[in-house]
Amino acid sequence: MVIGTGLVGASVGCALTRLGVVVHLADAVPSHAVVAASRGAGTTAPPRPADIRLVVVAVPPAALAGVISTALRHFPNAVVTDVGSVKGSVLAELTADAEVDLTRYVGGHPMAGSQNAGPLTANAELFNERSWVVCPNPMSSPAAIDVVKSLAREVGARVVQMPSAEHDEAVAKVSHLPQLMASLVGERLVEAPAEHLRLAGQGLRDVTRIAGSDPGLWRQIVAGNADAVRVELRAIAQALNEFVAVLDEPEAVERLVAAGRAGVRRLPGKHGLALASYARVDVEIPDTPGALAKLFAQIDASDINVEDLSIEHDDARQVGYLAVYVVPDRAGELAAAMSAAGWRLRP
Amino acid sequence: MVIGTGLVGASVGCALTRLGVVVHLADAVPSHAVVAASRGAGTTAPPRPADIRLVVVAVPPAALAGVISTALRHFPNAVVTDVGSVKGSVLAELTADAEVDLTRYVGGHPMAGSQNAGPLTANAELFNERSWVVCPNPMSSPAAIDVVKSLAREVGARVVQMPSAEHDEAVAKVSHLPQLMASLVGERLVEAPAEHLRLAGQGLRDVTRIAGSDPGLWRQIVAGNADAVRVELRAIAQALNEFVAVLDEPEAVERLVAAGRAGVRRLPGKHGLALASYARVDVEIPDTPGALAKLFAQIDASDINVEDLSIEHDDARQVGYLAVYVVPDRAGELAAAMSAAGWRLRP
Repeated sequence: MVIGTGLVGASVGCALTRLGVVVHLADAVPSHAVVAASRGAGTTAPPRPADIRLVVVAVPPAALAGVISTALRHFPNAVVTDVGSVKGSVLAELTADAEVDLTRYVGGHPMAGSQNAGPLTANAELFNERSWVVCPNPMSSPAAIDVVKSLAREVGARVVQMPSAEHDEAVAKVSHLPQLMASLVGERLVEAPAEHLRLAGQGLRDVTRIAGSDPGLWRQIVAGNADAVRVELRAIAQALNEFVAVLDEPEAVERLVAAGRAGVRRLPGKHGLALASYARVDVEIPDTPGALAKLFAQIDASDINVEDLSIEHDDARQVGYLAVYVVPDRAGELAAAMSAAGWRLRP
Repeated sequence: MVIGTGLVGASVGCALTRLGVVVHLADAVPSHAVVAASRGAGTTAPPRPADIRLVVVAVPPAALAGVISTALRHFPNAVVTDVGSVKGSVLAELTADAEVDLTRYVGGHPMAGSQNAGPLTANAELFNERSWVVCPNPMSSPAAIDVVKSLAREVGARVVQMPSAEHDEAVAKVSHLPQLMASLVGERLVEAPAEHLRLAGQGLRDVTRIAGSDPGLWRQIVAGNADAVRVELRAIAQALNEFVAVLDEPEAVERLVAAGRAGVRRLPGKHGLALASYARVDVEIPDTPGALAKLFAQIDASDINVEDLSIEHDDARQVGYLAVYVVPDRAGELAAAMSAAGWRLRP
């Protein structure tokens, strides 16, 4: 049973339906459930409550606690989870009601979605390779925790288990802060001359993409995590104020941009590795473009996936290197293949 | 002649070479020119100075004025332009030298590029549909201005002409501010627990993509446009400080996110139109998922490009609509086709 058929709820439905699970869909706005069903998320036919084994609550944050406790009562044999962006305040609300059976509730939060909040772009692949946070509460039964972890794994996600409070602190930094910063940058565009906006490139579009998010949804998210969000905003406000004061010092600008780059390089990439964890093979760049083009062709033709490429110059030896980044366990193979083909590697 | 074969210079070379122009490449780091040549950007063979008609200077900001004035002297028959991110400070430096022939210089700035600064990802399509700002100085000859505008158009860009000072004010807002905000968000990740970073989704990655940019390059860009950047940073610092003070008011959060969304909606999309300028056709959502799936198939099969879709619900009439956004001059056609196929449109 999926309650709430926005993008995330409908995508859970699509992924489970594809796995052969019978999914019932419900939404406070019936058109959303109909659209989700047309996208392959399940059926709008109402279920027999006793048959339901799992309920995924995918409603807006302010409605979470109410819908979760109703679902726990209405579906007596079901484990109930949710996909909400905030966990601590919802759990506090549930805990306050002594009649709620918390043994069958396990919080969840798939780190996937987008500013497009409806079921129109729902798809079964939405959770592929994404993290899905599972937040048991102190009463959650081990069996219920297993059901929710299985759900996450079955739809292709990686399980990250942590307590609700830690989840909220983490998302304040990696989700709520970037949203509000994007909104602040977007707000600066409201009064900008249209001619100036014609100069906008991909950088601004990337930074502000999530500024297109739903204001009503974010009102609820921030209200549900205000303390952790405040910590993040105060820290960045202080960093910004300090930076403005030293803007005229080129070293300060370089230091900030370098720190920002160091921070983003810690983000897990493909394979769940940070860029810094790739191995690097340095191949000497030959003098002639023709030979170099052959080198590129050979790298492309090798069976080894290149994660990144850069050019390094050795000023002392007056020679350039092509730095080829690959997953660590293929580096030896690449180096051997390049050597065998006659390319010189950096000593 | 292209001087400086990073991503932008090398891509200019690729685009011109594809058009049949003979392009000579030079770079202070010879490996970069060799790599650019291997990517199809031109030849590393030195030209006869008198033969050169156009010089594109694509070196880091701090080196711009020096390389431009040298190029004006060294290539007596050439129009000289550049692709630098700042214009006013470079022009001031050039103007200070009475021996520089400013009639043959016209500033330029293609709004394309990426955090990958080298020629490895150079491509002839980089400027397609992007804006290319052309900034004549008061001495620029009309013929020189025409040459630079033609360059921009020939490589597929849209020309936006404005004075240097206005360019600098515009890029402070649409380029330099987002860069520094992305860096500030990235800096917050330096000390974050690795487990928390596993929760990072696409939103954080988008916001911080440009935080991966080159610190040394940004040191020079900000130094060349410090006054305009300061105005932007102070404005956003004030907005941030004010927001932190009212964070507990849900209305304030909703207001900020709504303002941010209104701002980004002003950005030109495909066709150079802002989202707000698309026309909308509302089709009633039928009760059954099967009928709706047919509606989607018919919209897909129509020859009309759908820019966006959303679901709207009419609470009074208890009916949902699929809002289909298309370019204004195709809306009538779409509405007629949907009506003819038996779908009900919103009255």
